[in-house]
Amino acid sequence: MPGTQITKATLTTTHLSRTSTSLCSSTQNIKQNDAQRPEQSPSHQKMKRKLIRWVSYIAGDMTAFGKWMKRQFILLQIIDWVLRGAAQVMFVNNPLSGLIIFAGLILQNRWWALNGFVGTLFATISALILCQNRGAIAAGLYGYNGILVGLLMAVFSSAGDWYWWLLLPNIFMSMACPIVSSALASINSRWDLPVFTLPFNILVCLHMVATGHYNHYFPQVLIQPRTTLPNITWSEMDYAKLFRSIPVGIGQVYGCDNPWTGGIFMIALFISSPITCAHATIGSTIGMVSGLALAAPFENIYFGLWGYNCVLACIAIGGMFYALSWQTHLLAVACAFFCAYLGSAIANVMSNFGLPACTWPFCLSALTFLLITTETKGIYKLPLAKVTYPEKNLIYFWKMKKEERVDKEKKKLEKMQLDSQLKKDMEILVTMEKNKPEICTVAVQVDAKRENLTDQM
Amino acid sequence: MPGTQITKATLTTTHLSRTSTSLCSSTQNIKQNDAQRPEQSPSHQKMKRKLIRWVSYIAGDMTAFGKWMKRQFILLQIIDWVLRGAAQVMFVNNPLSGLIIFAGLILQNRWWALNGFVGTLFATISALILCQNRGAIAAGLYGYNGILVGLLMAVFSSAGDWYWWLLLPNIFMSMACPIVSSALASINSRWDLPVFTLPFNILVCLHMVATGHYNHYFPQVLIQPRTTLPNITWSEMDYAKLFRSIPVGIGQVYGCDNPWTGGIFMIALFISSPITCAHATIGSTIGMVSGLALAAPFENIYFGLWGYNCVLACIAIGGMFYALSWQTHLLAVACAFFCAYLGSAIANVMSNFGLPACTWPFCLSALTFLLITTETKGIYKLPLAKVTYPEKNLIYFWKMKKEERVDKEKKKLEKMQLDSQLKKDMEILVTMEKNKPEICTVAVQVDAKRENLTDQM
Amino acid sequence: MPGTQITKATLTTTHLSRTSTSLCSSTQNIKQNDAQRPEQSPSHQKMKRKLIRWVSYIAGDMTAFGKWMKRQFILLQIIDWVLRGAAQVMFVNNPLSGLIIFAGLILQNRWWALNGFVGTLFATISALILCQNRGAIAAGLYGYNGILVGLLMAVFSSAGDWYWWLLLPNIFMSMACPIVSSALASINSRWDLPVFTLPFNILVCLHMVATGHYNHYFPQVLIQPRTTLPNITWSEMDYAKLFRSIPVGIGQVYGCDNPWTGGIFMIALFISSPITCAHATIGSTIGMVSGLALAAPFENIYFGLWGYNCVLACIAIGGMFYALSWQTHLLAVACAFFCAYLGSAIANVMSNFGLPACTWPFCLSALTFLLITTETKGIYKLPLAKVTYPEKNLIYFWKMKKEERVDKEKKKLEKMQLDSQLKKDMEILVTMEKNKPEICTVAVQVDAKRENLTDQM
Repeated sequence: MPGTQITKATLTTTHLSRTSTSLCSSTQNIKQNDAQRPEQSPSHQKMKRKLIRWVSYIAGDMTAFGKWMKRQFILLQIIDWVLRGAAQVMFVNNPLSGLIIFAGLILQNRWWALNGFVGTLFATISALILCQNRGAIAAGLYGYNGILVGLLMAVFSSAGDWYWWLLLPNIFMSMACPIVSSALASINSRWDLPVFTLPFNILVCLHMVATGHYNHYFPQVLIQPRTTLPNITWSEMDYAKLFRSIPVGIGQVYGCDNPWTGGIFMIALFISSPITCAHATIGSTIGMVSGLALAAPFENIYFGLWGYNCVLACIAIGGMFYALSWQTHLLAVACAFFCAYLGSAIANVMSNFGLPACTWPFCLSALTFLLITTETKGIYKLPLAKVTYPEKNLIYFWKMKKEERVDKEKKKLEKMQLDSQLKKDMEILVTMEKNKPEICTVAVQVDAKRENLTDQM
Repeated sequence: MPGTQITKATLTTTHLSRTSTSLCSSTQNIKQNDAQRPEQSPSHQKMKRKLIRWVSYIAGDMTAFGKWMKRQFILLQIIDWVLRGAAQVMFVNNPLSGLIIFAGLILQNRWWALNGFVGTLFATISALILCQNRGAIAAGLYGYNGILVGLLMAVFSSAGDWYWWLLLPNIFMSMACPIVSSALASINSRWDLPVFTLPFNILVCLHMVATGHYNHYFPQVLIQPRTTLPNITWSEMDYAKLFRSIPVGIGQVYGCDNPWTGGIFMIALFISSPITCAHATIGSTIGMVSGLALAAPFENIYFGLWGYNCVLACIAIGGMFYALSWQTHLLAVACAFFCAYLGSAIANVMSNFGLPACTWPFCLSALTFLLITTETKGIYKLPLAKVTYPEKNLIYFWKMKKEERVDKEKKKLEKMQLDSQLKKDMEILVTMEKNKPEICTVAVQVDAKRENLTDQM
Repeated sequence: MPGTQITKATLTTTHLSRTSTSLCSSTQNIKQNDAQRPEQSPSHQKMKRKLIRWVSYIAGDMTAFGKWMKRQFILLQIIDWVLRGAAQVMFVNNPLSGLIIFAGLILQNRWWALNGFVGTLFATISALILCQNRGAIAAGLYGYNGILVGLLMAVFSSAGDWYWWLLLPNIFMSMACPIVSSALASINSRWDLPVFTLPFNILVCLHMVATGHYNHYFPQVLIQPRTTLPNITWSEMDYAKLFRSIPVGIGQVYGCDNPWTGGIFMIALFISSPITCAHATIGSTIGMVSGLALAAPFENIYFGLWGYNCVLACIAIGGMFYALSWQTHLLAVACAFFCAYLGSAIANVMSNFGLPACTWPFCLSALTFLLITTETKGIYKLPLAKVTYPEKNLIYFWKMKKEERVDKEKKKLEKMQLDSQLKKDMEILVTMEKNKPEICTVAVQVDAKRENLTDQM
């Protein structure tokens, strides 16, 4: 009897370990699933396998490429880190996406692209000097604030393009990024929260307000509080521009107003993670709708100013830091609406100081929504160390749930087996008892055994 | 010898357990105290008992009613939660107080009252959707920010009464309340602090600054920074209005300037907790005095703008989150003065953004005073899970102190008994030693026993 | 064999304990080092010893004086605490420095000095009333915010000198200092961070913005946002004034613009800690350079407004809260630059509310730099309880490093001895094995012994 029990348990464990192994890599998993469908023709199957392997090389976080990179020359590695840093603004850890994003930036404005590159480079170098965690640097987590600092300092400078002196504060602020990141991480890690783009927000606002519009060396664009609002005539609305505001909103994450640039960014997102791309589009749409609902001037909506924060907030909540489920998808939509509202509020407040809203609305709304605690199982916040990209997060979540279920079933099975065994023991005992009265000590032992086993449950 | 010791210890334990049981409910406690006064006539005693039982049904947090409610239809329960939510603004967990407060609001303005009701209702529903803790929802802890959001959005809207579109942002913001509450609670719980009305402050300011005075759909009242102050002529002071500013200050907690409404609110407070009512009055008075001391325009003082924050701060510190003692009473007075100062500062800062002070001054000053750590025993901060209402908090505090004292006395008694017993053992030993020298092994045993007992102390 | 091992271990331990004892006091340590140099003449040596003893009485934190003070009359003790509080603004825990600082203040303005004294006194008294930690009070840690509150309220009052009513809000705000300090410490202690001058910043800003320029009782100096900047003509620069701005920057920590006062403060710093004095000078210089780099008006630079925050930031990072090494020295320089940038930003933002920058830039930048986590050993953040003054911190750090090294070497030695012993045992065994085959059980025992010892490592 115990023999069969052990065999079954071993089988379950084996199944379990196979599951856990097979789920480690999503690609492998898909391949195995395919292998279980024997009705497909072998050639078709082979082609599909090849395709999936090729996709696995460029999609997701390009783990294979990252591993290969580790053995290369340091300068080549830094290029990889810079590209990953450029893509990490959108939570994408993928050098190919980074390359495409840089292409989009060059399409928009070469001077801005240069500033962005300088910012990412020096932020990464500064992180190396400060002996930050090498894994985080390699994932581009110290670069994404740098690219935003570099880009937006160029965007908001009123000294015109190719004003080379601007590189000085750009380098200084980029190098301050890892310091502020590290400090904020010390605080946020207490609640297992990421720092998002808070270092960028702090440093760009710091630079802009420290110099201001009237500065002789580093003048900023003049931003003033709104005192009147133009009348809204719905007949004047331009539907083409309204539709175009969706990619423009995605482009505005990097301060770009060119719809083609926004479109290129969408491709970069899609390569790494289709879920991220979908949520980016949803976020931008929600931002546009919110702008209309709150009577914002049409120009602002067309210019994508209502979109970019919602894009980031929707990506962050919808699958990135929460495992994707219909509840978290709705939460992402709610967060995007909240973010749009907050965006309008923060833009109005900060215009008093001549400042743009930056991505403060995204940071604050996403942090708020990540701090929620609920008693429902559908909203599962991933531990920060396990966050990769929505698809892999989802697989992690499913695996965890499956393990839980298997564990529960295993326990149920064991209990059932135990009960049946005890019943048999009892029956034997009863028959024995009829024969010999001195055998009752065995009964006591069996009872103790049952108690022992029940305690273990 | 050991026998008597055990008996005494048992007696002490029994007394202790009786104490702890008797102190569980304040009413029961009072009844028992009455029972110990045999000189009163039985009929008088009976009447008093009846009265106390009736009072126990409507005073405090109406526990009996709450328990009865649990078995009722869900819609009826929600009404209970909404009423408790309305009263929780003043830290009162009592549906009757909530009903009276709604009556006061209707007296002030029916449109405002409707908005307040909608706000509380949707905040509670949203908390249910988000699977928040059912006990907290039932105590109205998710409703009080909703009522304030609803009320104050109506108060500060310049679109006039019965502008039905306002219900849309009202519902949106009310439903955001539990999200912001839950997020803030995640942070504040690290220091065992409540969230107070911070979600209301955040959300109302967010709505007001996101739309602003010039918005076409949801225009707000125009608030501008003060650049000049009228001359203060003390002879022009109206003492009747100054006196009336005390109830008006209490009414302004809900944005009401009608002194009768304020008076009704005072009754609502008195029903649940006289200590709360007293501190509310003290707070309002301190606010008024501070206004005079800081050369505020008389109109602001008459309008209760100096009072409402102090009211809340004084209630929170005076018996609600600290156990009431003369030290915490003084601390509550100090906090009210600090809060009045802070109120003036915050009002001036926020007027730059067209915002009112809301209850930021109360939240910030009360949180500051709750974060203090001292080495005195008179200032005892209740664990957040144990906070109910000042009277019950006080009983909890006394009980705890009594237990501590009993514990200390018990230990002292045990030590004394032990010492006397050891002395006796020693005497016996000495007499025995004279007779037989081989008995000295017993002495070693006694010594070991003494050591053993001393270790247990 | 084991005998020699034990003797060596004992020797190491003795050496270790001697080290730890000798390093307890820096002076004692220096004396011992001197004693080990026999080539010096005895008279010279004697004189040097005497000098060092005298220096030890007035330098550092004057521990001997503090101990003597403990036995004195309470009023005399309070004077000691007030003087230490005055110096603690610059992180100096030394009553003599406090006295010199008061002399500098009197030189600047007697009314300000009086206000500063009243502030320190009442802050200390309030801390006593609130039963704060006596050790912290005696170190002046509750007074330094008081002196700044008193001084700066007098500096920014536009009611003129000797306006006696000002003492009322001065006393109120000073007494609020320990409350705000204690509350902030509850938060900051979670990250083992000091509160710096945050209570002063909060309370002075609170007072200034609550009253404002147009208040009838407590009018403030008019501060308005800059809308234009004067043209910068480098030929107009006054090098003498520029050089003088270094001591003026140090003086501005206490709101003083007299260069002699600044010089006196430098002396006060030098007495207690030369490292502190050096970093103060470096900080002030960096502030001045940053002002020039960011195109600030020359008057602001001459007036020391760019210096005082950098002075404090540079002291805090350079040896006070980090153990001094070349890495932390560079970090202090970086922090000073960051602080200057931040200072300009905060001054511009706060001028919108009619507020000065106070020492917000220092607090925020120093807290940011103290929150950094790195993987390098050169940047060692001292536990807050161990922070005294840079020289003593350094000795603590060296001692800790030495202990670590000794520990490592000791372990290495033990392992080597163990290995050699085992080798010998083995050799014996091999020889024995040749003679008697039944002795192999001993080998097993030796093996077990080796395992046992290895586990202990």
